[in-house]
Amino acid sequence: MGRSVAEITLAHPVEAAPTAADFTLIQRDLPDTPPQGMLHVRLLWLGLDPYLGPRIRGRHMGEPRPVPGGPLPGEGVCQVLASAVEGFKPGDHVVTEAGWAEEAMVSAETVRRIDPSLGLTAHLGLLGMPGVTAWAGITQLAKVQAGDVLCINAAAGVVAGTAGQIAKAAGARVIGIAGGPDKCRLALEQYGFDACVDYRQEGWQQQLADLSKEAGGFSIHFENVGASMLQVALPLLRPYARVVLCGLAEHYGAGTPAMINAGMIMFKRATVHGLIVYDFIPRRAEWVEMARPLIASGALREANDVAVGLQAAPAQLEKVVRGQSNGRALVRVAGDAV
Amino acid sequence: MGRSVAEITLAHPVEAAPTAADFTLIQRDLPDTPPQGMLHVRLLWLGLDPYLGPRIRGRHMGEPRPVPGGPLPGEGVCQVLASAVEGFKPGDHVVTEAGWAEEAMVSAETVRRIDPSLGLTAHLGLLGMPGVTAWAGITQLAKVQAGDVLCINAAAGVVAGTAGQIAKAAGARVIGIAGGPDKCRLALEQYGFDACVDYRQEGWQQQLADLSKEAGGFSIHFENVGASMLQVALPLLRPYARVVLCGLAEHYGAGTPAMINAGMIMFKRATVHGLIVYDFIPRRAEWVEMARPLIASGALREANDVAVGLQAAPAQLEKVVRGQSNGRALVRVAGDAV
Repeated sequence: MGRSVAEITLAHPVEAAPTAADFTLIQRDLPDTPPQGMLHVRLLWLGLDPYLGPRIRGRHMGEPRPVPGGPLPGEGVCQVLASAVEGFKPGDHVVTEAGWAEEAMVSAETVRRIDPSLGLTAHLGLLGMPGVTAWAGITQLAKVQAGDVLCINAAAGVVAGTAGQIAKAAGARVIGIAGGPDKCRLALEQYGFDACVDYRQEGWQQQLADLSKEAGGFSIHFENVGASMLQVALPLLRPYARVVLCGLAEHYGAGTPAMINAGMIMFKRATVHGLIVYDFIPRRAEWVEMARPLIASGALREANDVAVGLQAAPAQLEKVVRGQSNGRALVRVAGDAV
Repeated sequence: MGRSVAEITLAHPVEAAPTAADFTLIQRDLPDTPPQGMLHVRLLWLGLDPYLGPRIRGRHMGEPRPVPGGPLPGEGVCQVLASAVEGFKPGDHVVTEAGWAEEAMVSAETVRRIDPSLGLTAHLGLLGMPGVTAWAGITQLAKVQAGDVLCINAAAGVVAGTAGQIAKAAGARVIGIAGGPDKCRLALEQYGFDACVDYRQEGWQQQLADLSKEAGGFSIHFENVGASMLQVALPLLRPYARVVLCGLAEHYGAGTPAMINAGMIMFKRATVHGLIVYDFIPRRAEWVEMARPLIASGALREANDVAVGLQAAPAQLEKVVRGQSNGRALVRVAGDAV
């Protein structure tokens, strides 16, 4: 009676940026059938986001830190194996936090049904929280239009990749900023950006200034990094530009505030929007409907950095935390057979 | 032949904040009749703005500095004495830069016709550039609505006074910040603000925080001063607040940039607008039409700090530059007989 499944958990409490050595593989017993209100699911794909670094140390939005032996956070695409909930049946696909485990029992209230015809991994990236972030910033705050010129950093990431492709589809020109030739290549070749500046190369500020000048100034700047990037980008805006403050990653570890020049905002007649994605999560369906034809036409593509097998998850997270992933970091736990 | 009129000019080039001793009274000869395209005008009211401090030192928007013996900058309300221009006749009222002189010859292309029934001084303050600034910030950028709570500093000034009254007329609650009891009294009694915090009193930040709390957070912050005020006000915003960056007066002399916290903008989901009034000057007529019934009903009132006689102008400017004026600084040169 019961069933034993493999699961990854913390080997010990984590105080610094997590490394692969902080995790361990255990076996967990599951009941034969799901209790009332629960689903027995199999994890197909696990998504690993940068926020999991601070989250695992208990430093993310006041959420409790995971404990050794307990389930780890992170959304995954799952398939229902057995259901004790009306409306769900074996074979259905859902996104939920099921731990880093081959199989789990999850409450039906915590799951989000997905349309597998859009691609399974899309629901973790471009239709997941990163995609909602990109959609909200580009269409709801910056209100992209044909003729806009978008400057966006952390360009190889799924937020920027999705944001840039939404802007391209609207008729905008897109200039990315990323660290290293591989990330720039991804932005250009997979996401179709018009240009990408490598901030690890000397003279990148001048390159960016030249691209701005050529375009008559950036009309939208989308910030994912922090003050070091803002101080370069703000002077390159055209009058009445829109700025989206989406992420301040370089300040999260350091704890130093991201100070920006109010005089430059005035001088540019810019409008600066602060974006918190949680406000837009209830509107995910709007984004999914907008994305559907873009995915079908190939105008909206994902770029995934895939590790294979549950046991590869710790090393994959370490890579994410170090900013070394190229595209959306995923773990393929049980294939993507639909 | 000709006519000699009194005029104030610089006694010598000015390098620091101007004082009364930097000016001198001269006599200037005018022709009997205006040359073609010109108007002979009499100065009734001269407006003295804070920007004249840097302007007279050649430190304002790249404009040339005035020279000793030459005309001084500053808008005035004038009455036409003689016209060599079709469409203008003696008795007409105009606003123009006619120097700090009893009378002058001015090109008709530089003048703006005004409706004297709205009151002469209104055209220098609440219908002049300060008023257009207030209108643009409150109605075009912050888009004030009933239920809004406006926090605004330099509250005794004509920009803030007009902005606050526009907001009140739209159904908003208005909290001012000003330096000293006289300025706070002006904001409360003349402009009808709901509250005014004196930033020269100890504990003013807590007073402001209490007012914010009571109001459920400020929904609009209108900044006329700079970073020292922004760092107090931004944390007191409610989610989705709008911030108008209108003036950064405390940074003009010091030359230090006004740095503000981007993380706080994000956290508040705020929208920050940079305002440059020159963009809105072509739309002045919209504001005049909106203001007309407000003036008639008494909902929009001016507060003037009046010095009498052309010779009082230098001391009046010194007061403006020191931030000691209470309301709009004017010089009554030739009465306000219409």
